[in-house]
Amino acid sequence: MPAGDIDLIVKNAIVVTADRDRRVLDDSGVAVVDARLAGVMSSAELRPMEERARRIVDGSGMILMPGLINTHCHAGDSLFRGLVEDLPLEAWLQTVWKAEGAILNAETSRLGSVLGFAELLLSGVTTVMDMFWFPDETVKAARAVGLRVATGAIFFDPPGMNRLNTEQRIAEAETFCENYASADDVLPSVMPHGTYTVSPENLKKARQIADRHEALYSTHAAETQAEQADIQARYGRSVIRHLDHFGQLDGRTVLAHCVHIDDEEIDILARRQVTVSHNPVSNLKLGSGIARVPDMLDAGVRVTLGTDGAISGNDLDMWLALRLAAMLHKGANQKADAVSTTQALDMITRNGAEALGAGGQIGSLEPGKYADMILIDVRRPHAIPMFDPVTHLVYSTAKSDVRHVFLSGEQVVRDGALTRIDLTDTIAGVEALVPRIAASIG
Amino acid sequence: MPAGDIDLIVKNAIVVTADRDRRVLDDSGVAVVDARLAGVMSSAELRPMEERARRIVDGSGMILMPGLINTHCHAGDSLFRGLVEDLPLEAWLQTVWKAEGAILNAETSRLGSVLGFAELLLSGVTTVMDMFWFPDETVKAARAVGLRVATGAIFFDPPGMNRLNTEQRIAEAETFCENYASADDVLPSVMPHGTYTVSPENLKKARQIADRHEALYSTHAAETQAEQADIQARYGRSVIRHLDHFGQLDGRTVLAHCVHIDDEEIDILARRQVTVSHNPVSNLKLGSGIARVPDMLDAGVRVTLGTDGAISGNDLDMWLALRLAAMLHKGANQKADAVSTTQALDMITRNGAEALGAGGQIGSLEPGKYADMILIDVRRPHAIPMFDPVTHLVYSTAKSDVRHVFLSGEQVVRDGALTRIDLTDTIAGVEALVPRIAASIG
Repeated sequence: MPAGDIDLIVKNAIVVTADRDRRVLDDSGVAVVDARLAGVMSSAELRPMEERARRIVDGSGMILMPGLINTHCHAGDSLFRGLVEDLPLEAWLQTVWKAEGAILNAETSRLGSVLGFAELLLSGVTTVMDMFWFPDETVKAARAVGLRVATGAIFFDPPGMNRLNTEQRIAEAETFCENYASADDVLPSVMPHGTYTVSPENLKKARQIADRHEALYSTHAAETQAEQADIQARYGRSVIRHLDHFGQLDGRTVLAHCVHIDDEEIDILARRQVTVSHNPVSNLKLGSGIARVPDMLDAGVRVTLGTDGAISGNDLDMWLALRLAAMLHKGANQKADAVSTTQALDMITRNGAEALGAGGQIGSLEPGKYADMILIDVRRPHAIPMFDPVTHLVYSTAKSDVRHVFLSGEQVVRDGALTRIDLTDTIAGVEALVPRIAASIG
Repeated sequence: MPAGDIDLIVKNAIVVTADRDRRVLDDSGVAVVDARLAGVMSSAELRPMEERARRIVDGSGMILMPGLINTHCHAGDSLFRGLVEDLPLEAWLQTVWKAEGAILNAETSRLGSVLGFAELLLSGVTTVMDMFWFPDETVKAARAVGLRVATGAIFFDPPGMNRLNTEQRIAEAETFCENYASADDVLPSVMPHGTYTVSPENLKKARQIADRHEALYSTHAAETQAEQADIQARYGRSVIRHLDHFGQLDGRTVLAHCVHIDDEEIDILARRQVTVSHNPVSNLKLGSGIARVPDMLDAGVRVTLGTDGAISGNDLDMWLALRLAAMLHKGANQKADAVSTTQALDMITRNGAEALGAGGQIGSLEPGKYADMILIDVRRPHAIPMFDPVTHLVYSTAKSDVRHVFLSGEQVVRDGALTRIDLTDTIAGVEALVPRIAASIG
């Protein structure tokens, strides 16, 4: 092959592949050709290829791993970070909707989404499932910053923040799926908000669109006891049974939260191959409860992780979600081996990819997949010593340790800074809104 | 006054004082004279004093707050970070003691303590209560890095890692209290390990030494159900009642953990004005359980926060402890207002100071107190927007946001780097031990 046919080589790193065998390779790296991984191998094996590489990155003192996958977010809600405090979900939502109603339009949604996606990308998230009101703006924001996004139209019986009626929502969902059907950075999704805000009839319509376009399907489910009681009272069925009853559950369905579910509901989730997006930060902070993650893992449910929005969080820190996924359930169940580090790491890598129907494209470092990957500094005091890289990733890595991020081989974060966009105008734009946002719930 | 009589002015910051009124001051700062705060005031009020200042630090875009106080740590155990995983406390301790026994001496203890204290100081901790085997080395390490330390001799019935008998331990404890009685950077303490490792007779001897020297007194207590069952079986009393029975509890007593306690034990802790050091990270990770923090707060118990050691953690992140203190109990109790941000921030500031009998010296930014203070960058994407600085500190601040740290007015961290010590030799020393450490648990 001629010189220059390799776009990028990363070498001298500890490679955490997240592949089927969960291989961890000392002194290794990858070669990237045409946005995809051409090889994952030792630095010694890479050496003869180096003269063909247009760029070589030295990964010494760093872990190379797949970009993180966040399966539940509302990035645009970063506009409202820390605005609504100390309320349970239901009362909190009423206040959030008041603020969103006063502030959100296409422009402000994009502004908030850029801010949220910037935070995510800087922390090493390269793919996010994001539910927000103006999905085209969500795509624009993701492209401006440089990450892959699973998103699409929201279904919501009231007019919502984009003030659409049901017919318009259906049209929006159809059009979105059509427009992005062949995009490699958008995973079209249909996103009914929840069983307490969407009628069975509209749930069924949303599902039909998802099925017709082979799109992803995501909704909030069983987040609080109050929600379960509400759905039980309205329909005589629990949330998961309600969704199952209307044929909402399959392998392309991502249910956010699933905090309050019984054994049979766990069994339904496993049988239907549904993905549960565990959101420990918002579940704790809103007082929703602690999800039965060990039981779901035991039952074979695919568990992934989400940050939820910064209005509940109050940030978008997948490393915190990861660490909590690994340790919260040990404490809550008084069982020191309740969730293993491998199980936790799977949630933000390969499970996330499978949840989004992209297991063949992302979620691990393997030849043929997109070169979505991050380099993590492991020479800082809190990384010394390091007996096991996976343990270090799960329990001691901080978002600020992420130095470089690549999306399809393009470097989108360099030394902790975004490369595609300067955030100055975004931050100024958000701060100009602050008085209005603060007044919106006044 | 002559020019140069003010050592340092910090101006233009958002000042979170943690004073009695929990004042938060926009566009403000402090003046420092002879290691102590001479004034806390607006930038406008500081302006005429600037010409008398030998140094001026611009705090624009930053929060200025008191240095954090960590009331339970074993910094030297950073040598073993991530070594022992997925075991409950009792089995975990047996393995930890094996590793400690094989590795620890005065020199390696100091090495590990320097590493641990470096991590703490970089994250903004300026005072730590630390329990480790060679307390003189702990002091040397703290002084090398630049933080205040509450420490002293351990009581432990077996020989322990320093291989002392009871008489030698008594002598060590007495001597330590005498040697550091007048040090302004050491808070002499007597530290029996726990009721399951120290006999009532030795607990009483430890207590007598603490009383004689007006030293602090700290032990592990009620960390697991197994520990409670053990003490109940041995002595016919629960852990807190056992300690109370032997007169161990007073306002200078810091009990680490207190996870498994009943209503009456909470009442005893409140009546005796004992401090509880809540360690949510290690309690979760070791599967110990979730402490009854809201109940303790309701009963008037003084609650503070600790990181515990990096062998259980696996890092020393007080910001994570803070965030968990504020949100874990909301989730565990399904009560979205279970712990307020003010209560949480008190734990790492003023409560920490009072726990260490140093409420008049540290723990808030008030005239007359030591200038132990930190500057936190609030211009990064995850800090935008910021509706309330205290909410931001509790829920969105990361250790990497800490830019500058001052101890008694001396800058010990500048732009995220230690000023007193270069860690290169420390890190090399720790890494040279890694093969022996890994082999120690065989």
